[in-house]
Amino acid sequence: MLDLWFTEKQTKNVNFTCRIARTLHTETSKFQNIAVLETEEFGKMLVLDGTVQTTVEDEFIYHEMITHIPLYTHPNPKMVLVIGGGDGGTIREILKHPSVELVVLVEIDERVVEVSKMFLPEISSALNDKRVRVNINDGIEYVKNLESNNYDVIIVDSTDPVGPAEGLFTLDFYKHVFKSLTDDGILIAQTESPFFNRSLIKRVYKNISTIFPIAKLFLANIPTYPSGLWSFTIGSKKYDPVSTNLQDKYDIDCKYYTKELHRSCFVLPKFVQELLK
Amino acid sequence: MLDLWFTEKQTKNVNFTCRIARTLHTETSKFQNIAVLETEEFGKMLVLDGTVQTTVEDEFIYHEMITHIPLYTHPNPKMVLVIGGGDGGTIREILKHPSVELVVLVEIDERVVEVSKMFLPEISSALNDKRVRVNINDGIEYVKNLESNNYDVIIVDSTDPVGPAEGLFTLDFYKHVFKSLTDDGILIAQTESPFFNRSLIKRVYKNISTIFPIAKLFLANIPTYPSGLWSFTIGSKKYDPVSTNLQDKYDIDCKYYTKELHRSCFVLPKFVQELLK
Repeated sequence: MLDLWFTEKQTKNVNFTCRIARTLHTETSKFQNIAVLETEEFGKMLVLDGTVQTTVEDEFIYHEMITHIPLYTHPNPKMVLVIGGGDGGTIREILKHPSVELVVLVEIDERVVEVSKMFLPEISSALNDKRVRVNINDGIEYVKNLESNNYDVIIVDSTDPVGPAEGLFTLDFYKHVFKSLTDDGILIAQTESPFFNRSLIKRVYKNISTIFPIAKLFLANIPTYPSGLWSFTIGSKKYDPVSTNLQDKYDIDCKYYTKELHRSCFVLPKFVQELLK
Repeated sequence: MLDLWFTEKQTKNVNFTCRIARTLHTETSKFQNIAVLETEEFGKMLVLDGTVQTTVEDEFIYHEMITHIPLYTHPNPKMVLVIGGGDGGTIREILKHPSVELVVLVEIDERVVEVSKMFLPEISSALNDKRVRVNINDGIEYVKNLESNNYDVIIVDSTDPVGPAEGLFTLDFYKHVFKSLTDDGILIAQTESPFFNRSLIKRVYKNISTIFPIAKLFLANIPTYPSGLWSFTIGSKKYDPVSTNLQDKYDIDCKYYTKELHRSCFVLPKFVQELLK
């Protein structure tokens, strides 16, 4: 039998390797290499430029946490913008909130959307919902050209800060996001591993704190991401995610998120607290 | 230059690989293969039978969490027993609690203690403290032969449930631990990954719930352990770790543990909650 393994270089000195049953798809788009692998441990896996984006087995964690923390914090989210996230997992979670009227997904690489629709229907199927507009565009340009006060929540569901996503981690970008949000709007961005990307986390947190009255960082455990621990940073104009009253809120069906976790995920280990000082 | 890498088979289908500068030590004792590697990412690493036990860079997380949760929960821990833990990291953390008068370390493999003393002084140095007795013995036999009401806290700082440590995860063993604890005593055991060892966690939690009036599970993020997420299970005769009042407690110097985390680490993701039902 053919012994097939996929290896991701998580850092210069650490590799993550998993056994694959087969390669379902591989292509090189205008922006990146796109692959879908069938892994033995995590089910189907989407890989961009050699980096794991999501897997069928553990995608629920990332997608629930990047979505439900800001959408439960906002009292009435109607208009939501997702930058990146072409696999559709974040969209699926957003649509669980009954107040949502329109979700715009701005993804730079049309092929990520198409490949996800074809090979990962478990994750991507919500892309076909009538409340969703898919806009193939550079998120940085899109946000720069937006009029003010457009969105209640903006979710930056990006790849790592190398290549096309680099500009999504800059002060300038966050300023345009701030302007595009309504007066009680909320930004959330995925901000990498507290073990392996400390200087990035420090910088992004400082930038977001400079622009937004409320800045908060929380953590979630994602086994297929480097170190297994992932950070998300929130910038909020009015509502503090930690003091949200969730008691009377509607329930939604989740596998990771709970209303108790909504608060406790902001309680940081000492060494992560120190990064934010 | 020689390109050296160490690979741990974390599951049948997942490998963790890290670059090493050199092998500092390797030997085969009566019980297992013992290696100390100098890794580029995590500093020195102790490996038993091919499995990562601890590294200089991230050992603080495991050792702080297995120690401070039970020792802060108990109002006055004087007598502490550690089963396993021959590297001495747990001992170092225990000795930060001023009430502790005696710590007995029962380690089956004398060579783990000796190798740790020689190559990992950052972790092992507390083994020389005058409040510590090192007892080279099988922990299962040791606990079976103990008289009742001996220890305030018993910490099971074991290897994975294969080979010599297998008996440390059984109902019978926990019964002997219960008997050896004082009337307000507390057991804590490391209980593996909620992603990769679900049936073990279920079984251990059920066993401990059967014997102890209070059973609780908490989580910590350890990047060099499989999935990056690790569970610990507590059995307590009297004090609930979640409702401990820590406000007036002394402070100790930590890099991961905080008094807020003492509570929030028990708030479990939905899929982990379901394991314990």
